[in-house]
Amino acid sequence: MIRLALVGYGYWGPNLARNIMANAEAELVILCERDPARLAVANSLYPGLATTRDMQDVIDDPSVAAVVIATPLATHHEFTMAALRAGKHVLVEKPMAASSAEAAEMMGEASSRNLVLLVDHTFVYTGAVRKMKELVRAEGFGQLRYYDSTRINLGLFRQDINVVWDLAVHDLSIMAYLIDAEPTAISATGHAHITGHGSNIAFLTLFFDSNVIAHVNVNWLSPVKIRRTILAGSKQTIVYDDLDIGEKIKVYHNSIDIDPSPDEVHKLLVSYRTGDLWSPKVDDTEALSRELQHFLACINGEETPLTGAQQGLNLIYLLEAADISMQQNGAPVEL
Amino acid sequence: MIRLALVGYGYWGPNLARNIMANAEAELVILCERDPARLAVANSLYPGLATTRDMQDVIDDPSVAAVVIATPLATHHEFTMAALRAGKHVLVEKPMAASSAEAAEMMGEASSRNLVLLVDHTFVYTGAVRKMKELVRAEGFGQLRYYDSTRINLGLFRQDINVVWDLAVHDLSIMAYLIDAEPTAISATGHAHITGHGSNIAFLTLFFDSNVIAHVNVNWLSPVKIRRTILAGSKQTIVYDDLDIGEKIKVYHNSIDIDPSPDEVHKLLVSYRTGDLWSPKVDDTEALSRELQHFLACINGEETPLTGAQQGLNLIYLLEAADISMQQNGAPVEL
Amino acid sequence: MIRLALVGYGYWGPNLARNIMANAEAELVILCERDPARLAVANSLYPGLATTRDMQDVIDDPSVAAVVIATPLATHHEFTMAALRAGKHVLVEKPMAASSAEAAEMMGEASSRNLVLLVDHTFVYTGAVRKMKELVRAEGFGQLRYYDSTRINLGLFRQDINVVWDLAVHDLSIMAYLIDAEPTAISATGHAHITGHGSNIAFLTLFFDSNVIAHVNVNWLSPVKIRRTILAGSKQTIVYDDLDIGEKIKVYHNSIDIDPSPDEVHKLLVSYRTGDLWSPKVDDTEALSRELQHFLACINGEETPLTGAQQGLNLIYLLEAADISMQQNGAPVEL
Amino acid sequence: MIRLALVGYGYWGPNLARNIMANAEAELVILCERDPARLAVANSLYPGLATTRDMQDVIDDPSVAAVVIATPLATHHEFTMAALRAGKHVLVEKPMAASSAEAAEMMGEASSRNLVLLVDHTFVYTGAVRKMKELVRAEGFGQLRYYDSTRINLGLFRQDINVVWDLAVHDLSIMAYLIDAEPTAISATGHAHITGHGSNIAFLTLFFDSNVIAHVNVNWLSPVKIRRTILAGSKQTIVYDDLDIGEKIKVYHNSIDIDPSPDEVHKLLVSYRTGDLWSPKVDDTEALSRELQHFLACINGEETPLTGAQQGLNLIYLLEAADISMQQNGAPVEL
Repeated sequence: MIRLALVGYGYWGPNLARNIMANAEAELVILCERDPARLAVANSLYPGLATTRDMQDVIDDPSVAAVVIATPLATHHEFTMAALRAGKHVLVEKPMAASSAEAAEMMGEASSRNLVLLVDHTFVYTGAVRKMKELVRAEGFGQLRYYDSTRINLGLFRQDINVVWDLAVHDLSIMAYLIDAEPTAISATGHAHITGHGSNIAFLTLFFDSNVIAHVNVNWLSPVKIRRTILAGSKQTIVYDDLDIGEKIKVYHNSIDIDPSPDEVHKLLVSYRTGDLWSPKVDDTEALSRELQHFLACINGEETPLTGAQQGLNLIYLLEAADISMQQNGAPVEL
Repeated sequence: MIRLALVGYGYWGPNLARNIMANAEAELVILCERDPARLAVANSLYPGLATTRDMQDVIDDPSVAAVVIATPLATHHEFTMAALRAGKHVLVEKPMAASSAEAAEMMGEASSRNLVLLVDHTFVYTGAVRKMKELVRAEGFGQLRYYDSTRINLGLFRQDINVVWDLAVHDLSIMAYLIDAEPTAISATGHAHITGHGSNIAFLTLFFDSNVIAHVNVNWLSPVKIRRTILAGSKQTIVYDDLDIGEKIKVYHNSIDIDPSPDEVHKLLVSYRTGDLWSPKVDDTEALSRELQHFLACINGEETPLTGAQQGLNLIYLLEAADISMQQNGAPVEL
Repeated sequence: MIRLALVGYGYWGPNLARNIMANAEAELVILCERDPARLAVANSLYPGLATTRDMQDVIDDPSVAAVVIATPLATHHEFTMAALRAGKHVLVEKPMAASSAEAAEMMGEASSRNLVLLVDHTFVYTGAVRKMKELVRAEGFGQLRYYDSTRINLGLFRQDINVVWDLAVHDLSIMAYLIDAEPTAISATGHAHITGHGSNIAFLTLFFDSNVIAHVNVNWLSPVKIRRTILAGSKQTIVYDDLDIGEKIKVYHNSIDIDPSPDEVHKLLVSYRTGDLWSPKVDDTEALSRELQHFLACINGEETPLTGAQQGLNLIYLLEAADISMQQNGAPVEL
Repeated sequence: MIRLALVGYGYWGPNLARNIMANAEAELVILCERDPARLAVANSLYPGLATTRDMQDVIDDPSVAAVVIATPLATHHEFTMAALRAGKHVLVEKPMAASSAEAAEMMGEASSRNLVLLVDHTFVYTGAVRKMKELVRAEGFGQLRYYDSTRINLGLFRQDINVVWDLAVHDLSIMAYLIDAEPTAISATGHAHITGHGSNIAFLTLFFDSNVIAHVNVNWLSPVKIRRTILAGSKQTIVYDDLDIGEKIKVYHNSIDIDPSPDEVHKLLVSYRTGDLWSPKVDDTEALSRELQHFLACINGEETPLTGAQQGLNLIYLLEAADISMQQNGAPVEL
């Protein structure tokens, strides 16, 4: 039984609390939340649970082995560093930190103390993304060609971060998991429609050395919610629609392999046609449940962090590069 | 009755032929197509129609008042110039020409001879796009914020042009019709997956002086066909799905106007929520039929070209800028 | 504060428990569940809650003012009667009882003791069905013509009841709420594919004295889940798709009123065409939360049961008639 | 080359004409249409084609080997009989005739003269239905359990026939093709909302001796168009959505075979769950083209009518039984 503390009970915290409660190997020892109203909600749902508004209470509790941090981005570094220095393992919300400098320091602290520092790149733990990993690795997929994702909705207009740091972060973490190559450059464009806020609409293109290109469209001002990713290989193409409960993952078999010989150009129309479609069943275990189990296994030394500090830091580098490119209207930034 | 010739009976020509046949004010006098097999198809469908494989026969026929050109892009300039020089009006396929230099010359020739030169920017003549124009102009729409279009499919992999010249051209013509402002810069990225061909996947961002941004996602290698455009205003947002026969146009009413005052940030989540949705009926007259009627009316001096040489040339400038930006991985090109 | 007991923590019980917990005017005093495994789940989620495996503990607790019963159908009568006899109000799962005789007895007991007996016809408390009620009553709807519902899925193959008692019950309760008329006859057909079980697929037609017909298609053996109801009036038609989160309710305006004059038959094609579509926003308050609030208000004498014993009994009559008709391959049963 | 006449150029005739024109083994010799306006349309599209308003001209032309009849139902018998008596083969629109008596006489005439009499049950010739036949026959499908079809739209409100004769006819012909058993009884319900017209909404249940049930929902007064058929087997279930261009046919694999042993009832929930989904590519050859080819092959003695007079007559029996049951509010009619 590993004793956990949860810090932050805002939007995401309740999901973390519920999953910790349901995990037989973890025990939620204390919950910390600064907002009295939010704290009252937690108290009513979990009458017996110790709660506090002061992070220091968590740090000072020697029985707490690990801390789960789901607070605003600006506090990730401070709270994570405090927990690590107190010898506690940490699972921190994405993005890992507000800058690569912060993230690097956090990574160093965890490493030197031999503590687990896991970043909550939730999608990597979903059945759908894991199924995609399986499919992409299989021989039938062919060579990866592109990743194109649309992640738009009329949602939480966050003040502390822009839409890239809020939504594109999901795609960047999925790409890091699925693509066996590092992007070499990034071009990003976007716009802030509301005075005093960061970009609420943004478009990222990532370049790779190989025959691969990636694109992400994120938007806080869409009246329709779309979560669709196309992952194209030379033999198969996967369409992942996170909102399609029945058919989250569809695999299209390209009917004929491409023949780029110049003489057969007139046949190209035919050779690119789609063949049969296959929609494998996707494991619908809640991602947070699987991720929490992984966190516990890492603490026990049984597994190695799939989305650890290094992955979290890599992702911050990309976000920073995207911001720079956006300020220059898409001028590419080398990575 | 205006006497027309049709040059080119490949992919698009049959649609033009059918619409000319059905127009009571036009008469199809002669059809020109170099490929004997394609010509045979035309002959069997229209037994009485005069046909030829030689463009010169069209030029030499003094009874032909206007020529409709639906040939490969490389020939647009040559055929259009020949027709204009013979004193014939011209309706030419999009894109108008292979370069802005060619397009400018064509525009000059038509202008100096006082002939109509119409470019087939088909979407401008659809009921859906015209309905959008009506909606965008109405007071209820508010200020335009963004245009975001996805136009992808597993389709005709054209050898003579890249996917921007083939598909993005539609969005650029729709934007020119709907947006009362000129783009000031463009950033484009893309990739050519098949040796010997141009980019088959591309992403364009267009910048404007006003509070507007536009984005276009075009792709020849998608297993699913998508034709969806979001046109967002400060009060309403239009979603145009060209494949949704029943609800091509949906209008979402933003429930509350945005209040960007810093104190109310916590209310932003609520204030951006969508209100009622309205899907107006769209006139389903075939676009080509309406466009052909417009062409005849322009010849008769009753109307002014909606998609004339100037519009065609403007569009070529954008395509050329996109190509330059793509070669530089998204570096913005001023317009 | 009204003190409640919850009996049954199987499929539906957890939803009831959660909503009682969240209601500020109710207090969950004790939870009764016979299955130790299910009881353990409840104990872990609500550590401080008193639990028991014996219904008598609930009956004997004088502090319990009302009992919520979510047990298998066979026990509804026994448990409800016991609670009523102990002077406790009751909210019982649908269907109210296993027979009209049982239901009538329950109604009599509640009535004679002046206790609230509410039946959990959940859909009547959804925002969507309440919005439909509002639309149907409005002048713009015209005269009601038909109700046609498809409610199919690959779901819980229940052994104690057939698919009519499990799924059609929802439509019958929605109809009772929306239609201001009583059905006069019912014709039902169906089939039991699995030995030892009741019908798993069934089709009901309800006849009315007025110009109205209703139809319900229920099925436990469909690989796709569909929840779609069409409610047609002479001027508008409502399509209610419970699975369409963004557009649960769509209202189609019939473009022209019907003119049944024999001379204009050739115009009928046009006159039945659909006009604009409108999708009103639907209140997404959880139905159980609203229903529980209603139950408390009925206990307090502030409201009258919307889905009380009479409505519950009427519905059982329909279910029994459907069973008889099904045994006779659709022969109509007068009501 | 077989010389054909086409009688009737209303709603369906133009499709027949176009397909005859495109068939290399058939020649359209003469077209007969009583309405001058419709005839004028045909003349303008096919300038060289002989036309007439008098059916006798077709009968009297000895060069005509076969007649295609696409006229209102009331005339099917008269025109077919006249053509057969003149020694001409016939392809007649569905339903074959206005009564089983008429249909039987037509069948007898064709048989005694050894002429081909094909009925235009179009759906039997579609790639989708043929693919379903292939799937149903394969071992992986298991035993057929049910056929459930929804065929509703806001369409042509026909005066001469009711919605069963107009729309359910399609499902009855598909069933006859797909199901290797004859229905033993039918129960039908419906309603006529418009004075002076037949039923515009109807629901049919067909019973079989085997473990099979079939249901059809047809409706002329729906604001949405639906064409969805579920064909369930014990091992697989096919969902055929005729409006889903990309995925017309979906095959769901039932993950586990059913175990109806009473002890394992609690596992039923799991055992009925859906496994992977597969959407085979469907041949998109136009059904009429394939049917016309079949008609020519039957005339040449190379093939036997798939939807001949016997199939047409069987279908009329079902339609008549449905009408009788509808008049009795669903009382079953033995076949």
